[in-house]
Amino acid sequence: MRAPAQVGMRLEEVDTPALILELDAFETNLKRLADAVGGRVRVRAHAKTHKCPEIGKRQIAAGAVGVCCQKVSEAEAMVEGGIADVLISNEIVGARKLDRLAALAKRARLGVCVDHADNVRELQAAALRAGANIDTYIELEVGMRRCGVAPGGPALDLVKVIVASPNLRFAGIHAYHGRAQHIRSAEERRAVIQNSSLLVRNTKTLLEKNKIVCPIVTGAGSGTFMFEVELGAWDEIQPGSYIFMDWDYARNEWAPPMPRFEHALFVLAGVMSRPNPRLAVVDAGLKASSVDSGMPGVWQQPGLSYTHASDEHGWVEIAPGAAAPALGDKLLLVPGHCDPTVNLYDWYVCVREGVVEALWPITARGALT
Amino acid sequence: MRAPAQVGMRLEEVDTPALILELDAFETNLKRLADAVGGRVRVRAHAKTHKCPEIGKRQIAAGAVGVCCQKVSEAEAMVEGGIADVLISNEIVGARKLDRLAALAKRARLGVCVDHADNVRELQAAALRAGANIDTYIELEVGMRRCGVAPGGPALDLVKVIVASPNLRFAGIHAYHGRAQHIRSAEERRAVIQNSSLLVRNTKTLLEKNKIVCPIVTGAGSGTFMFEVELGAWDEIQPGSYIFMDWDYARNEWAPPMPRFEHALFVLAGVMSRPNPRLAVVDAGLKASSVDSGMPGVWQQPGLSYTHASDEHGWVEIAPGAAAPALGDKLLLVPGHCDPTVNLYDWYVCVREGVVEALWPITARGALT
Repeated sequence: MRAPAQVGMRLEEVDTPALILELDAFETNLKRLADAVGGRVRVRAHAKTHKCPEIGKRQIAAGAVGVCCQKVSEAEAMVEGGIADVLISNEIVGARKLDRLAALAKRARLGVCVDHADNVRELQAAALRAGANIDTYIELEVGMRRCGVAPGGPALDLVKVIVASPNLRFAGIHAYHGRAQHIRSAEERRAVIQNSSLLVRNTKTLLEKNKIVCPIVTGAGSGTFMFEVELGAWDEIQPGSYIFMDWDYARNEWAPPMPRFEHALFVLAGVMSRPNPRLAVVDAGLKASSVDSGMPGVWQQPGLSYTHASDEHGWVEIAPGAAAPALGDKLLLVPGHCDPTVNLYDWYVCVREGVVEALWPITARGALT
Repeated sequence: MRAPAQVGMRLEEVDTPALILELDAFETNLKRLADAVGGRVRVRAHAKTHKCPEIGKRQIAAGAVGVCCQKVSEAEAMVEGGIADVLISNEIVGARKLDRLAALAKRARLGVCVDHADNVRELQAAALRAGANIDTYIELEVGMRRCGVAPGGPALDLVKVIVASPNLRFAGIHAYHGRAQHIRSAEERRAVIQNSSLLVRNTKTLLEKNKIVCPIVTGAGSGTFMFEVELGAWDEIQPGSYIFMDWDYARNEWAPPMPRFEHALFVLAGVMSRPNPRLAVVDAGLKASSVDSGMPGVWQQPGLSYTHASDEHGWVEIAPGAAAPALGDKLLLVPGHCDPTVNLYDWYVCVREGVVEALWPITARGALT
């Protein structure tokens, strides 16, 4: 897919819709995370958000030990792009995927999560076929009610299967509470993570009683990571969205110790119709900005609200007295949810002070398998 | 992006998630549309749904005069793929896009919609620069409240600007009511389209009184097209989703004269976790099946319901007594909304009687500009 811009263009010349990365804000966010964490835990940035090795490398330059992915094909794109340390923070099931994973583990440091003994056995078989060694984490169910083995006895039993697998190295516990990230009240978010931390600690203690060392506890996201840092049960955090700060995260209450990040990701949309004084229709609909977590916000245009999306159109309502955009004008939208929005594009148009500085390919776009 | 299957594989060997096209159902849908319309109007199938020249060619073989697109880049992909007659059923604004459109009009028969005189003038300028002739339709606002010029006088004034443009040919009226497609009651859908037909007829009469011939009235979608056919004000219909029949369209009331189509599009998902007896987690979340019109349906698995999606995970709840899928089992999901789901994939895995017969590239995937 052709890029909608060239280096050196002014922002207003970029074709629409386009995915815009504001480099100053992005770099501020990298630094703000590092400053907040202050080296107390390791940072392993989540690449499911950006799907772009160029961004992963900048996160590592800012102190991250590596990246996380959710899919083998995402991990392949990251390794191909020069990232040497990848944790697939997810279960990978089936021989076909596991053979790819094992092959990748011979090219980079690779970790993966498990929550079922059958999956550990097929992982061991794939690692053996490839002659690979794979860091294997148990995913612990800490309240999200998605994947994960139950804390305590079931977790211990699963770890024992890993420890008995010659090509697998028990690397620790993955403990992530996804739903907690978007709880609006900071105090409630902290309470949920505190509960998760008890489950982590109890399970770790049980492993120790059974003479099993748990090298790393990893987890946390952009909405809670400082609670994980302060509660002390995690060795590594996995924030992803912090680099972009989407419109849904902006609805969270941001209070110390959680730093508030800058909006760095935008969809540039063009006004394609002005059917009446109260409405501007833009050329960015739900194929240009994912609406699963709500409509995008209109950036720095008081009185303009993006209220509805169809496939290729967005309805921007104009409040009485607001400055109305003309046909052909371009608006910056802040996506409702950054991860699935990024997955709609092939390029980041990287802009600094209104000029296109770089085009970064989203090489893991559509990496589903 | 690598294809998740090879020709000759059995369906259950296909990697997950994958976009599956059931060829028998697809071909049934092509025939069912042609039979229902019975040659009373022209069919111009909408390619925004499928983004795939292979499918466009089969629609033309089944009687369509050509395809519609929503974006210049989509039209480019269709012409590149061998489609000779494309209507962009949408406004295209700005010199950069219009220069591409005009260049394309020298390679294929190309139409486009306008709803503003300024846009007609920039379209004429682009056509002149390229030495092209472009079929130009007015988009009439017939109740959807999106784009479109108001019926009557404003429409007449706009047509006069087209007629005065030497490189533009006034090709007719585009009259589409998108919201009507998903009104559940067939009777209400008919009533809405009947109202639209009055606006079309009045405007056409006004043009005739002003000695302007209106060659074609085009519009309609998969939820209403037989009403447009029967009401007699349309010469051409633009159904898109009929080839796939998504889960949202299945919620419509289907009664004569509207034929009910077969589900032909599926997402193949793999069970990646069985954390408890009531829950299977699948590897297809909202990056694999768009949830803007609701969750996908689970195909032919009584008692299984897909109730929630996160980026890479789907929650499939298991009713008491239902046959529970095992870890690694694969389920077919019917997407909630076909168009944005297709846009997440690079390949159709075309299956007949359980065997992969072809892989069709989705060449206009991500064609946003």
